[in-house]
Amino acid sequence: MKTIGVVTTGGDAPGMNAAIRAVTRIAHWKGLTVVGFERGWEGLITNTFRQLTPRNVGGIIQLGGTILHTARCLEFKTLEGQEKAVKTLNEHNVEGLIVIGGDGSFRGALELSKICNIQMIGIPATIDNDVYGTDETIGFDTAANTAVMEIDKIRDTAISHERIFIVEVMGRERGFLASVVGVTVGAEVIIVPESHCSFDDVVKTLRENTRKGKRAGIIVAAEGCGKVSEMAKTIEEETKSEVRLTILGYVQRGGTPTARSRLLASLFAEKAVELLCENQGNRVVGLLNGKISSIALEESCGNSKPVDTSLLRINEMLSI
Amino acid sequence: MKTIGVVTTGGDAPGMNAAIRAVTRIAHWKGLTVVGFERGWEGLITNTFRQLTPRNVGGIIQLGGTILHTARCLEFKTLEGQEKAVKTLNEHNVEGLIVIGGDGSFRGALELSKICNIQMIGIPATIDNDVYGTDETIGFDTAANTAVMEIDKIRDTAISHERIFIVEVMGRERGFLASVVGVTVGAEVIIVPESHCSFDDVVKTLRENTRKGKRAGIIVAAEGCGKVSEMAKTIEEETKSEVRLTILGYVQRGGTPTARSRLLASLFAEKAVELLCENQGNRVVGLLNGKISSIALEESCGNSKPVDTSLLRINEMLSI
Amino acid sequence: MKTIGVVTTGGDAPGMNAAIRAVTRIAHWKGLTVVGFERGWEGLITNTFRQLTPRNVGGIIQLGGTILHTARCLEFKTLEGQEKAVKTLNEHNVEGLIVIGGDGSFRGALELSKICNIQMIGIPATIDNDVYGTDETIGFDTAANTAVMEIDKIRDTAISHERIFIVEVMGRERGFLASVVGVTVGAEVIIVPESHCSFDDVVKTLRENTRKGKRAGIIVAAEGCGKVSEMAKTIEEETKSEVRLTILGYVQRGGTPTARSRLLASLFAEKAVELLCENQGNRVVGLLNGKISSIALEESCGNSKPVDTSLLRINEMLSI
Amino acid sequence: MKTIGVVTTGGDAPGMNAAIRAVTRIAHWKGLTVVGFERGWEGLITNTFRQLTPRNVGGIIQLGGTILHTARCLEFKTLEGQEKAVKTLNEHNVEGLIVIGGDGSFRGALELSKICNIQMIGIPATIDNDVYGTDETIGFDTAANTAVMEIDKIRDTAISHERIFIVEVMGRERGFLASVVGVTVGAEVIIVPESHCSFDDVVKTLRENTRKGKRAGIIVAAEGCGKVSEMAKTIEEETKSEVRLTILGYVQRGGTPTARSRLLASLFAEKAVELLCENQGNRVVGLLNGKISSIALEESCGNSKPVDTSLLRINEMLSI
Repeated sequence: MKTIGVVTTGGDAPGMNAAIRAVTRIAHWKGLTVVGFERGWEGLITNTFRQLTPRNVGGIIQLGGTILHTARCLEFKTLEGQEKAVKTLNEHNVEGLIVIGGDGSFRGALELSKICNIQMIGIPATIDNDVYGTDETIGFDTAANTAVMEIDKIRDTAISHERIFIVEVMGRERGFLASVVGVTVGAEVIIVPESHCSFDDVVKTLRENTRKGKRAGIIVAAEGCGKVSEMAKTIEEETKSEVRLTILGYVQRGGTPTARSRLLASLFAEKAVELLCENQGNRVVGLLNGKISSIALEESCGNSKPVDTSLLRINEMLSI
Repeated sequence: MKTIGVVTTGGDAPGMNAAIRAVTRIAHWKGLTVVGFERGWEGLITNTFRQLTPRNVGGIIQLGGTILHTARCLEFKTLEGQEKAVKTLNEHNVEGLIVIGGDGSFRGALELSKICNIQMIGIPATIDNDVYGTDETIGFDTAANTAVMEIDKIRDTAISHERIFIVEVMGRERGFLASVVGVTVGAEVIIVPESHCSFDDVVKTLRENTRKGKRAGIIVAAEGCGKVSEMAKTIEEETKSEVRLTILGYVQRGGTPTARSRLLASLFAEKAVELLCENQGNRVVGLLNGKISSIALEESCGNSKPVDTSLLRINEMLSI
Repeated sequence: MKTIGVVTTGGDAPGMNAAIRAVTRIAHWKGLTVVGFERGWEGLITNTFRQLTPRNVGGIIQLGGTILHTARCLEFKTLEGQEKAVKTLNEHNVEGLIVIGGDGSFRGALELSKICNIQMIGIPATIDNDVYGTDETIGFDTAANTAVMEIDKIRDTAISHERIFIVEVMGRERGFLASVVGVTVGAEVIIVPESHCSFDDVVKTLRENTRKGKRAGIIVAAEGCGKVSEMAKTIEEETKSEVRLTILGYVQRGGTPTARSRLLASLFAEKAVELLCENQGNRVVGLLNGKISSIALEESCGNSKPVDTSLLRINEMLSI
Repeated sequence: MKTIGVVTTGGDAPGMNAAIRAVTRIAHWKGLTVVGFERGWEGLITNTFRQLTPRNVGGIIQLGGTILHTARCLEFKTLEGQEKAVKTLNEHNVEGLIVIGGDGSFRGALELSKICNIQMIGIPATIDNDVYGTDETIGFDTAANTAVMEIDKIRDTAISHERIFIVEVMGRERGFLASVVGVTVGAEVIIVPESHCSFDDVVKTLRENTRKGKRAGIIVAAEGCGKVSEMAKTIEEETKSEVRLTILGYVQRGGTPTARSRLLASLFAEKAVELLCENQGNRVVGLLNGKISSIALEESCGNSKPVDTSLLRINEMLSI
């Protein structure tokens, strides 16, 4: 293998730049040339790229976002678009393509792998942590810390005003982020899509808290549950206490990556380049049982990662 | 003067605890006793209080919120409620009352001052910075920094995805916070209630930016302008580019106070206690022309502080 | 089991309070009473304690340090001191003792376990990460992030002035912290006690960097290597470039714990209480292969945890 | 005036990039061309420069350090060096030069002004805040906040271990930074070069604190006082308590600028360009009595700014 490509697709995640840097430098160390395609799949279709060298990826390890940009690309969903992408890759003599992104990105890579012989490697990077084949994705730890630091601030007001706050965190359809954030901010209640949680239960818990002398409280809700403003109204009516709602939103997607997000990015990148050098393609790297490893791309795309619901059970005890 | 009272009312602001600590310690240094009333005016009506001593205000300088709590109090708006408050103050032999809060708090203090001889001193503490008689309120600098750090994160995503983000910041009916935040995050457009800003102008600016090669952008809008989701839709339709909306919300109200918010809190407190020791009551302390000073409580309540619109003009040049 | 004790000993670490909170609440959920001993082993000797309840451990999850305090205790190193400690524990009918700390703390617990029937459980909490039986200790992730955020700031000056900075990070005799921090700040060189690193090699690397056009650089050195000021002088003389030295120091020990340090604290605490409820004592809980587990106290005390030197090898590629 | 130059000299300070951006964009708005010289005076001597345009100063408002770099330059201290600098400026047809830096930088500008007709404008940017003619310099607020956030972390350990910590903060020969940091972290003692402070006084205060029940304490010392390790030893011997020392060092010089540092940078830049457009040269812009203003360059260089020692007096009361 002489030339590899790199692309970031899907939503940005903190640590993508650390991964781009690590892929580039490790590939160069091993004698490979690296082409970075811009704006996700769009760059493969339009042949928008830049050569990545050890020097031009300097000074980016600490930056949020992705210097290669990312974008939605409808054309890539068509066979025609995918064939254009393969043509571009062939023009650059790309033999291996590293796709940094989430499960949608990997499904795209899987499609590509079916119409060409280029080896695909997925590096999981999304704040949602919803990629099968890894216990943790690049960016997840950063987003969790951002949300925790925000909710620590909100708690100041919750306690000062003795109010209930509902805080909606990201996570798309899944509750990975909400679970970890809920436990680590000391939430009274955590609401995730994977676990049935009736408004009645929430109201009951809050009433018990009042009896225990807890005058303030934080409810962490995953965006995948929807209906947070309806929930705020119901709780307000039922508990006769003031309820405030904050949707943390896009701040969770940016910011300088944490040490852990940077470390995962570096280790995943090393594994990805190593796999390509060994001609093992169509795999997704990941952290499994505390070790850097990889599974087949097809397996990652074909399975849904379960949320660790034991966190919810533990939080019931922690919020006693 | 032998005994003074302290109360925090209205919305909490970072630095209120630094002010409580400073009032308590400086008052003790000068031989005074300090009674802290809890939950704003409610504590005066219900006689809920704690003695404040140099030791029990230790370790709070860095905490957001207010250890004395704060709350809305409808009863205090009635003469009957105010008379209960005066009765409580008299029972404690309080000769001077330091009210830490915003303009609503000071109007409450003004009402009280009309039915008793207790000297009222206002210490301006609100993230909105909308208090007449001071160039800056306790908490404003902290909220500005919180908003700026958040928007710095959002910019990562804005640039990576080459999108427009509208970010709504707090400030109630006023644009103090939005103006400073807008200039210091490098916003393309700042929208405040004090300045007419048509959607047409915003759209025009964004179109020009596209021509200049700016593919991403941040619009900072004060909550007092309202209609941000409508604005997002209009801009999306008119510019044919994706627009995202984030409402920063309550994170701006909490968090550890900045050096400046703590410093103002300490200096305002010193001035407040000094005024009481000199038997100069019914005043609001503040920062005017770079100096710690004070104006009459009545003057502060009767006037509206103007926003420095030169910031908007300067930002037009800065976002060229 | 009806009553358990908790103590924090050795150097403080961010997340100790989250662990105290979690132990207390989970123990109460399971019907146990919790006694917190103050100032480490000293509190066991002098019978200085406080009852810990779900309410009085509220609002501490986000605090650095330890509300139970910690201290050196020479008397505990004597048999007489240890017997006093056992006497205290017996007076409180403590059947299980949870010791939150590092390897020195666990050796103390092991000594105690030899002269009484109280079940000892160690919860590893130290920023040094040097506890055998766990891949990660409470506080390590926080200290790593603190060091990384500091060095990100130092890099601004390193690049602006085009200078070499040597930054000494904590870790006592070991290089766990320096390895992770070095990789995640993008250090040119990482120096740890576990790997021979001659000044000559460092100078050689820096000279090569100059040839490559790198005009600034960060060297991360573990405190266990010693001699950083000597190193600074040597490098300055040999490379004829200005070298600056910063010893990060105690800032790495404090601060609000990260999401991960809080999560580990909560999960370790749950495991610790569960072990006691199952009458499995004299164990150290930990994270092994990505799972919460435990090993024998004696095994933890009798072994030295190896540093993952593959990080150094990877960093050579990353700093190409 | 058609062309202006910009240079950053002396130690870097957070907000320098915000100033470079603001100078460039406002100058372009007013029809001027901007040349940025690199590595301080060295760039003027060697004619190392880059054209600054509204687009190439985008995305830097939040960056610490200076994109123009800075360096010591011995040659510039000679008349020959200064004449080379003038020659370079003339080659570029520079009619006005904006010097972003501290008092040493302004003395350099004053020297230049004596041998050419180019209008010099100083923009004060240094974390030391020791520039005559402005109440605050760009970067000071950021450095103060960095030091405060660090010491907040150190306090966790100070309280947990009930120890005295001496923390040395920057400020060169002056106590501006130490004074503000000391008051805002709640230091027991603040030691600055401008105020006589005997070790005896410090020991006396600490002994009194022990009597009052204060078991931990923070002493903030300005680097200009020197001898902190000697002080640590003396205090340890005299008070028989453990004393720890941390030198905050270079972290105070970097990092993303605060809202206030960015705002000052923008407002100073606007004033600087305005002065040049009005052909008012050889001035230093600043914040005086809460207003953006300017004084003669010669006046700024010829005077020493006094430290506000009232902060020390207030801190005596605050640390009661």
